[in-house]
Amino acid sequence: MSVNELFQYSVVSALMDGVASKGLPISTLLANGNHGLGTFRHMVGEMIILDGKVYQMNSDGSVATVSPSSSTSPDDDRAVTPFAMVTRFSPTVTTRAAFQSKQHLFDSVSSLLPGTRNNYISIRLDGTFKNVKARTVGGQAHPREGLAELGKHQTTREFAGDEGIRGTVIGFRSPAFMQGISVAGDHLHFISEDRKTGGHLLSFETVGEVEVKVAGIWKVVLELPRDDEEFDQAKLEADREGIEKAEG
Amino acid sequence: MSVNELFQYSVVSALMDGVASKGLPISTLLANGNHGLGTFRHMVGEMIILDGKVYQMNSDGSVATVSPSSSTSPDDDRAVTPFAMVTRFSPTVTTRAAFQSKQHLFDSVSSLLPGTRNNYISIRLDGTFKNVKARTVGGQAHPREGLAELGKHQTTREFAGDEGIRGTVIGFRSPAFMQGISVAGDHLHFISEDRKTGGHLLSFETVGEVEVKVAGIWKVVLELPRDDEEFDQAKLEADREGIEKAEG
Repeated sequence: MSVNELFQYSVVSALMDGVASKGLPISTLLANGNHGLGTFRHMVGEMIILDGKVYQMNSDGSVATVSPSSSTSPDDDRAVTPFAMVTRFSPTVTTRAAFQSKQHLFDSVSSLLPGTRNNYISIRLDGTFKNVKARTVGGQAHPREGLAELGKHQTTREFAGDEGIRGTVIGFRSPAFMQGISVAGDHLHFISEDRKTGGHLLSFETVGEVEVKVAGIWKVVLELPRDDEEFDQAKLEADREGIEKAEG
Repeated sequence: MSVNELFQYSVVSALMDGVASKGLPISTLLANGNHGLGTFRHMVGEMIILDGKVYQMNSDGSVATVSPSSSTSPDDDRAVTPFAMVTRFSPTVTTRAAFQSKQHLFDSVSSLLPGTRNNYISIRLDGTFKNVKARTVGGQAHPREGLAELGKHQTTREFAGDEGIRGTVIGFRSPAFMQGISVAGDHLHFISEDRKTGGHLLSFETVGEVEVKVAGIWKVVLELPRDDEEFDQAKLEADREGIEKAEG
């Protein structure tokens, strides 16, 4: 994979259908990129990948560092990912800016990278954030439990207060026509600077300006699950409304 | 690209929206595969790629061989493709079978390659066909004319009679959840053995058994148009009904 190409394993529709018993080895994922997000087997927690390091953000608030060597036991849910997106991130625009909302970030990135309305974009923010709301799914109660169902008993954390929390936001913008394959719009995960908390970013503001790094993506490598009965049997209908609700 | 990986340039939704003024150089397409299908700039005719050779099947019934060197003039519509799918085809199942319809072929391929319900498949048939119905689009009357509109004045040819016509069918099955990106289901093009006629396959039967070659695909490389204003401005909404009608 060259820089700023996207590698994606499986599709979001498969998570919606609860396909999460098997997956790609974390070591293979890291061979394809050093920046990204995803989840772990049985959707236990949220995955964020910063500078080649993989973190698992659990619903009890704990964060584990996942090294490929520590997760080789086939019984370890962290050994494989049923869905992830990674890139070798090489920002083409680096700047500083303040954001009042996810929508504000969306509009700002669009103006930083004109001509990318129908493309993927890699995004990274570093700085201090306030009113961060992040959710973390706790894992499937049973095989094939879908992401929408998991969402009903997810944990949502809020980091409020004007002093804010230092941390990093990483993620991808996916074009509208890829809804179901990826998550249309901005799909972002947050992790605190001390790597002690974080999750799937629902809403946020910044405290003053943060560092903003973005790059457009024109090539996507999509790897589909192989020898995976759950994936083969899933209906995988594009549930646009469900995805918006689960990943919004 | 390794064998049995799919390389696709642009998305079917873009053709539906009439995005066809620019495209990928044919030489770049051939660097990514030797078996496939697509169209040419301004959607002039149907493209079929057999054993690394590119043919343009026009609506007047003529077939042109397109070599990368013969199509380097920027004014030549055959210089670039606004949409194509190619692979380095290495069949994993080779057999002989008779087919009564496209649906019969679909069901047969499913049983030849179990476990591929949600995957792409490469398909090639060689033999004698009867009641072949193939359509060929004649090209855009104006920029941004969409594929559904072009379909209204496409040419449909029928090769009837029991003696049939010898030729080759090449194409891909795409999973249902990729509708709009690719064409869900079997998307096949036909060319006669004498390379004098052919088009987008609408319906067919075989005369006795034909040679059948298939392979499953688990990795897809999707390259999106870059610096292409038409693509950037297109809405690219998944028009499922329109695609089924235009590509059925």
